[in-house]
Formats: sequence, C-alpha cells, structure tokens
Amino acid sequence: MEYVRDGAEIYRRSFATIRAEADLSRLPEDVARVAVRMIHACGMVDLVDDIRHSPGVVTAARKALRDGAPILCDAEMVASGVTRRRLPADNEVICTLRDPAVPGLAAELGNTRSAAALDLWGDRLDGAVVAIGNAPTALFRLLELIAAGAPRPAAVLGIPVGFIGAAESKEALAASELEYLIVRGRRGGSAITAAAVNALASEDE
Amino acid sequence: MEYVRDGAEIYRRSFATIRAEADLSRLPEDVARVAVRMIHACGMVDLVDDIRHSPGVVTAARKALRDGAPILCDAEMVASGVTRRRLPADNEVICTLRDPAVPGLAAELGNTRSAAALDLWGDRLDGAVVAIGNAPTALFRLLELIAAGAPRPAAVLGIPVGFIGAAESKEALAASELEYLIVRGRRGGSAITAAAVNALASEDE
Repeated sequence: MEYVRDGAEIYRRSFATIRAEADLSRLPEDVARVAVRMIHACGMVDLVDDIRHSPGVVTAARKALRDGAPILCDAEMVASGVTRRRLPADNEVICTLRDPAVPGLAAELGNTRSAAALDLWGDRLDGAVVAIGNAPTALFRLLELIAAGAPRPAAVLGIPVGFIGAAESKEALAASELEYLIVRGRRGGSAITAAAVNALASEDE
Repeated sequence: MEYVRDGAEIYRRSFATIRAEADLSRLPEDVARVAVRMIHACGMVDLVDDIRHSPGVVTAARKALRDGAPILCDAEMVASGVTRRRLPADNEVICTLRDPAVPGLAAELGNTRSAAALDLWGDRLDGAVVAIGNAPTALFRLLELIAAGAPRPAAVLGIPVGFIGAAESKEALAASELEYLIVRGRRGGSAITAAAVNALASEDE
C-alpha cells in the first residue's frame, strides 16, 4: 500500500497544507501558530474563521507554562491529549472530574458533574492555564467562580462543543476580563483544545 | 448566570436539535443513532453527509461488544473517551501506543509509532471492535496486517483526521471486505470516534 509513513514528514506536509489553505492573515503570528495545530486536530481549515482571542492570551499562557503553572482540564480526554514531553516545566495536568466528591457536589450545586468538578480546583486556579474542551457548563461555572472571587487563571482556552450552551458560554468568556481563546459557535471539543495546549506548550512545529 | 444545568436535560435538548437539523433520512435507523452521537461530539450536523458504512456494521459491532470483544484504539484519547459504564460486557479498552516496544518496532517497520502499535494487537484483533480516531497510518497498517493474514475484526470504525492520508485511508477501508463505518474526507478525530463507540456500546440515548 502506498502512503507516507514518516511521522515528521506527515507533520511537515500537513502544516504546509494548512498554511497554504487557511486564511491565517487575520490572526497575529503567535495565535496563527496555535490555530495551525487546532486545524490539524480537526481537519477543517475554516476553523480559523471562528477563532477569537484576547490580544495577550498566547504570551500569558506561554509565560504561565514556563513558570510551572498547572493545566486544568474539564475532561479526561483533554488531559489525555496533552503531550507531556512538550510541556516546558513538567507542568501538572489536572482533571478532577473523576474525584469521588464530584457526584455529591453536583447534586448539591444542582449542576452537571463537569461543572461541579471545577469547585475542586481551588487555589490551583491562581495563574493556571485552563483548558475547557467539552462541557459548556464547566465554562459557565468557571466564570461564576471567578465572579464570586476565585483566583484568576493566567489564560482560558474555552473550546467546549455542542448544541446547548456551547456558543453562549464562549461568548460569555469573550466578554470577560480574562485572557481567552475561543472557537465561536458549536464547534470545539477535546482534540482541538488539547492541540491548542500543545501549541502553547512549545513553539516546535 | 442563566444556563441549563441539568445534564440529562442538556442531552435531551442536544439530541432533539440534532434530529431536527441533521438529514438522517439517508441512513438506516441503527446507523442514524450512531450518527447522532458522532454529531453531538463535534457540533456539526453536516457530518452526516460524510458518513459511509457497510450494511451490517452496527449489528456486527453490537453483537461483538455484547459477546465481550475488546475495543482496540489507535490513540489514548479515543480510549479515554469510551464511557466504561456503557459497555455491555465490561469490555477491555486497549491502546498499545505507549508500549515500550513501539518506538523500536516503528524504526524497524519504517512507519509511525501509531502504525507500529497495531503490530502488538496480535490475536486480540480476532472479532474485536477497532476504533481508529487519530492516525491515517494506523488505518493503513490495519489493512496491511489483515491483507497479510491477521485475524479479522468484527467491525472497524475508521475515523482518522487530517490532511495527509486521512481521506485515502478511509476510502481504502471502505473498499475492503470488512464491516466499516467512516467519515469521508479530512474530518474525524478521537472525540467523534469515541462517540461512535459509545453509541454502539449501548442503545441508551
């Protein structure tokens, strides 16, 4: 069977195709590099049209990661997709969704388990890189916690996916004072989100 | 903040939106149920237009899972996305990518680690449900192994993503004698693939 078998060559050709086809010109160069990996993870060059970000998000996230900040994820799939060897400071990758306290907390809050899991992040939020790639309720809960005085993360990748609340939760993040990167609308998900983390973790392509 | 906090209600409304918007009429009912979950995982109702399948794939995969077949995944993210409590027979979910033998095997084969990892599946392929959601080279390697006499899986979900080889590997699967489900073109990925496994594992929505 005829196919490209060299992993490095596959990456090179993939990124070349993306840079040839995607309209990256509307993004600053640092965000464009992140966008390339996000597109690589979903196979859609038009994803770039829905990317919105605060001006300082890449600088803030890169600095936080170099300084050893943890990466707080809403879903195990996001955590699973973070390439550990790209992390600049052997950063912790944390997902609290399977903590045994979560179901009780969710019942108490009257919210999803994905949202309740964030209440276990506690002070680890301070200066963290937050990566929400699955549940809109987790992103809404993050904004509620911060409005109520929780410590502020260094940057928030808000890329939940879906039909109920996804678009709205991302617009709410973009309207906040936080450093953010979102994909507007329904698209998003754990693979795109983990790819964004991986792009921020190292400038290697 | 105003948003739907009830997980079951979010699922109900999401699936209702998908069934209202997606053109599921070209799919048989059993495949349509799988398509709904795949769409849910990526936020795109037009994904349905790219789904292709062999007539018996859902029946074959469901029977295999009920009979205790393992689920063989090319990527940790796919394995991580399989909801264990939906599995009908506490089925094993296997990803061999991190096996210490893989880098050496990849060098020997002159192929990617994702492809080489499949050589460790061995007899577990016999009657398995294969879920390839990341690497085109893994799907190509599967077809090579089977052509060379490896045991046949019960069904193959071939949903790798990307720009180099993804479309071609999926067309090659569709041209085989295997029971298959693919998403034509560049789209795909671990979240969509895990969602397909979860839909096949249980008829609960």
